[in-house]
Amino acid sequence: MFSKNNWYVAASVDEVKDKPLGRTICNEKIVFFRKASGTIAAVEDFCPHRGAPLSLGFVEGENLVCGYHGLMMGGDGKPAAMPQQRVEQFPCNKAYPVAERFDYIWVWPGEPERANVDDIPTPLWADNPEWAVGTGMFHIDCDYRLMVDNLMDLTHENYVHRDSIGQEEIEQAPVKSYAEGDTVITSRLMENIIAPPFWQAAMRANGLDPEQAVDRWQICRFTLPSHIMIDVGVAVAGKGGFDAPAEYRAGGTVIDFLTPETETRMWYFWGMARHFKVDDEQLSEQIRVNQHKIFSEDLAMLEQQQQNLLRNPDRRLLKLNIDSGGVLSRRKIKQMLAREQKTVA
Amino acid sequence: MFSKNNWYVAASVDEVKDKPLGRTICNEKIVFFRKASGTIAAVEDFCPHRGAPLSLGFVEGENLVCGYHGLMMGGDGKPAAMPQQRVEQFPCNKAYPVAERFDYIWVWPGEPERANVDDIPTPLWADNPEWAVGTGMFHIDCDYRLMVDNLMDLTHENYVHRDSIGQEEIEQAPVKSYAEGDTVITSRLMENIIAPPFWQAAMRANGLDPEQAVDRWQICRFTLPSHIMIDVGVAVAGKGGFDAPAEYRAGGTVIDFLTPETETRMWYFWGMARHFKVDDEQLSEQIRVNQHKIFSEDLAMLEQQQQNLLRNPDRRLLKLNIDSGGVLSRRKIKQMLAREQKTVA
Amino acid sequence: MFSKNNWYVAASVDEVKDKPLGRTICNEKIVFFRKASGTIAAVEDFCPHRGAPLSLGFVEGENLVCGYHGLMMGGDGKPAAMPQQRVEQFPCNKAYPVAERFDYIWVWPGEPERANVDDIPTPLWADNPEWAVGTGMFHIDCDYRLMVDNLMDLTHENYVHRDSIGQEEIEQAPVKSYAEGDTVITSRLMENIIAPPFWQAAMRANGLDPEQAVDRWQICRFTLPSHIMIDVGVAVAGKGGFDAPAEYRAGGTVIDFLTPETETRMWYFWGMARHFKVDDEQLSEQIRVNQHKIFSEDLAMLEQQQQNLLRNPDRRLLKLNIDSGGVLSRRKIKQMLAREQKTVA
Repeated sequence: MFSKNNWYVAASVDEVKDKPLGRTICNEKIVFFRKASGTIAAVEDFCPHRGAPLSLGFVEGENLVCGYHGLMMGGDGKPAAMPQQRVEQFPCNKAYPVAERFDYIWVWPGEPERANVDDIPTPLWADNPEWAVGTGMFHIDCDYRLMVDNLMDLTHENYVHRDSIGQEEIEQAPVKSYAEGDTVITSRLMENIIAPPFWQAAMRANGLDPEQAVDRWQICRFTLPSHIMIDVGVAVAGKGGFDAPAEYRAGGTVIDFLTPETETRMWYFWGMARHFKVDDEQLSEQIRVNQHKIFSEDLAMLEQQQQNLLRNPDRRLLKLNIDSGGVLSRRKIKQMLAREQKTVA
Repeated sequence: MFSKNNWYVAASVDEVKDKPLGRTICNEKIVFFRKASGTIAAVEDFCPHRGAPLSLGFVEGENLVCGYHGLMMGGDGKPAAMPQQRVEQFPCNKAYPVAERFDYIWVWPGEPERANVDDIPTPLWADNPEWAVGTGMFHIDCDYRLMVDNLMDLTHENYVHRDSIGQEEIEQAPVKSYAEGDTVITSRLMENIIAPPFWQAAMRANGLDPEQAVDRWQICRFTLPSHIMIDVGVAVAGKGGFDAPAEYRAGGTVIDFLTPETETRMWYFWGMARHFKVDDEQLSEQIRVNQHKIFSEDLAMLEQQQQNLLRNPDRRLLKLNIDSGGVLSRRKIKQMLAREQKTVA
Repeated sequence: MFSKNNWYVAASVDEVKDKPLGRTICNEKIVFFRKASGTIAAVEDFCPHRGAPLSLGFVEGENLVCGYHGLMMGGDGKPAAMPQQRVEQFPCNKAYPVAERFDYIWVWPGEPERANVDDIPTPLWADNPEWAVGTGMFHIDCDYRLMVDNLMDLTHENYVHRDSIGQEEIEQAPVKSYAEGDTVITSRLMENIIAPPFWQAAMRANGLDPEQAVDRWQICRFTLPSHIMIDVGVAVAGKGGFDAPAEYRAGGTVIDFLTPETETRMWYFWGMARHFKVDDEQLSEQIRVNQHKIFSEDLAMLEQQQQNLLRNPDRRLLKLNIDSGGVLSRRKIKQMLAREQKTVA
């Protein structure tokens, strides 16, 4: 249950250099490649000659050469050439709108004429020297909406991530969930608490005494189709919380771009953007490694939850106050799909 | 083709200590856990909150805590608590009758109101200091009834286990198969023969000359739903066989509790109980290791037999005299299922 | 889409020595075994007693003994004996016509009465001391007809095998494809070119200067049901090409026996027969290793092509002039199947 008429993160920029990359996005089997001129192209991963995967081929100039018999596929899906052949009458491949924006390659797996690159979001931290960004990716055997639920209800931190970012106060703090247009916000503030290990390490890195009381915030923002940015951090207690002066705080934004592969598999592009000590590369690496460890703790849970749901298709789940962020986000997805269906009809 | 309204071995006692155990029994996905008070509980492995597997959680007091968002599940299937939530209206999980008896945890995957713990069998060797017991477990990709056939026709020993317990005399000795109520018995006596290697080792351990002639017995007892105990052993020839005085014999009971996982997979709880040299722990370990080796020889055969039968659903198999133990046992299973269907209707 | 009423290579002679071999050919699960007298037999891999795979058994005299309960299966599919049993009334297994010819065991998976061992092809190099033969085998997850296409269009060499036998002149040379009875021939001649690495090594081995210009030939011969022999080689330019005197040439025949396992899996028996330096065993081994490396380069392409075609069952592929060898060969297969259907009806 996903909409193809949206921009999704398909890959990190690093994944598509001189070799093509085959990846399925929203059930579309796509090959991405970087032309000699530097721009990215995305076409069906199927050679119109004999059905070979173009992703096993190689880039030559502005084209992708099929590694089986040499058909040269243009970035527009039109066969550009083939040794000793006239290709004008060859059938064309679907070509997908694609764009490179900050650290990612974005693709629009739906109807090309509806794509507008200006709709690709530009977070504050994107290409911004005042922020340091570290990222990673997981391939997970679950419906991407289970990850929406996961990220829009952070009480799970006290169970799944109890040794790093979990603490009881997350559950105790009141949660506030609401929609603003197509954005869903769910937030929690914990005042005058002791920071958990992950944030104590961040305080230490930022020159703060990690033992002192802090105010901690978690502000999750879901936007369609499935992007979630979470402002997280701590500030010395009573100094203004999220709005505290830089010298009293350590914080950042958790990056979560969720991309459906199929109905029950997803690509998870995660990361952390921070705006303190942005030049400290050792700190960046330490945060990236810790985040990798923390986020990998969710995998078994999500994949077995998916299996459980497939086994019990008729069983209704609970929708508690802590679930309201996920429930509102799923409603936005549903409304978007309904709008789309109306447009099509 | 199995009946859920029966007691099955679900796990060895050692498998459920401080952590929960998820295991599918008769198509029911169950989580087993040991309460702080020491008793065992078994409920559906599905959190009513969001469908997470409870088996990824942890025990706290008398409850199992979901490892995703902290719902506390009671052993009776009723949610007992959840941080900041009122759980009285939460839907309940199925709870399964469960009991700990001698070395095993037993479960009744069917209708709870029909379960009676007094129906759990208590073999002679259970919690009996005059016997030494060693056990093990295999997870096998076959219908549990193929294992019933296997254990109720020991002529296979001369082929599958020819280097340890096989010998031609098994095939040559007449087999006697009959039912006594719901028990099926199939037995063989081999008189004045040389013992095979496994039994020569047992004779040596029991202070007997392994080269002398012996009488060997195999008495298989099938009881519903799928338990098979096999009296096996040797005695110095002419001293009374099974009834020979202790100083002339070496023998024991092969333990076989067969538990269906699905229609084509099973859990096999095997073991050996002996009543000679019961304090010789080195001997116990030697027997356990040998039995593990011997029983693992059956696995490839059973799993490939299952595949062959699935490929050839219409092909009729033979029912020879050697198969009569298995044939009678399967008839008992069929009759039990028919009775049950009548009761339901 | 294959015909069972044909001779297929089932195994190399080396694969069936003292132990039976289970292998599925054209959807028939068959066990092959070598009798004590030396001849090969092939019967269904299913024991009529309890359905165990006979391939887990052992050979005794002229029979295959089931490794479960000792039924002795004759090479004619009739149970020959079983300990303490009368087997006269036992049901019989299908027995498959089978023959050992030169380096292979051949089987006829269809109607036995239509099999004639004289129809097994005898290539020039078979059991011929003037030729040296090296062979190998791959199990590939693709329709065998994708391999027919592969071998009947060698332009792929310039892409898949570009470091060994590929060169641009393959694409540039005109291709000639035609049928002669049930044989399809597709051939290319490249005149006055520099040999690619594989052939330069062969020239060196045959005492020729590898840097000098050569004429290179590729003559693919497809015969029903799915055998492809390819004459390949080079000769010093202007010396007569394929017909050049032995001292000016290096050449051989690529052996390709394609055997369907199922609709989407195949056994690929490949090899190279050469008639120069036939006694040079080091050269034989070097060629075999190189060919193994070259042919393994096709596997990922063929298997992913198969997956692509299964995902896109309605998409029509192109049939270019370079594909004409494969197109004509597939037409022969189709005609054969049509003839067969007529015969049956």
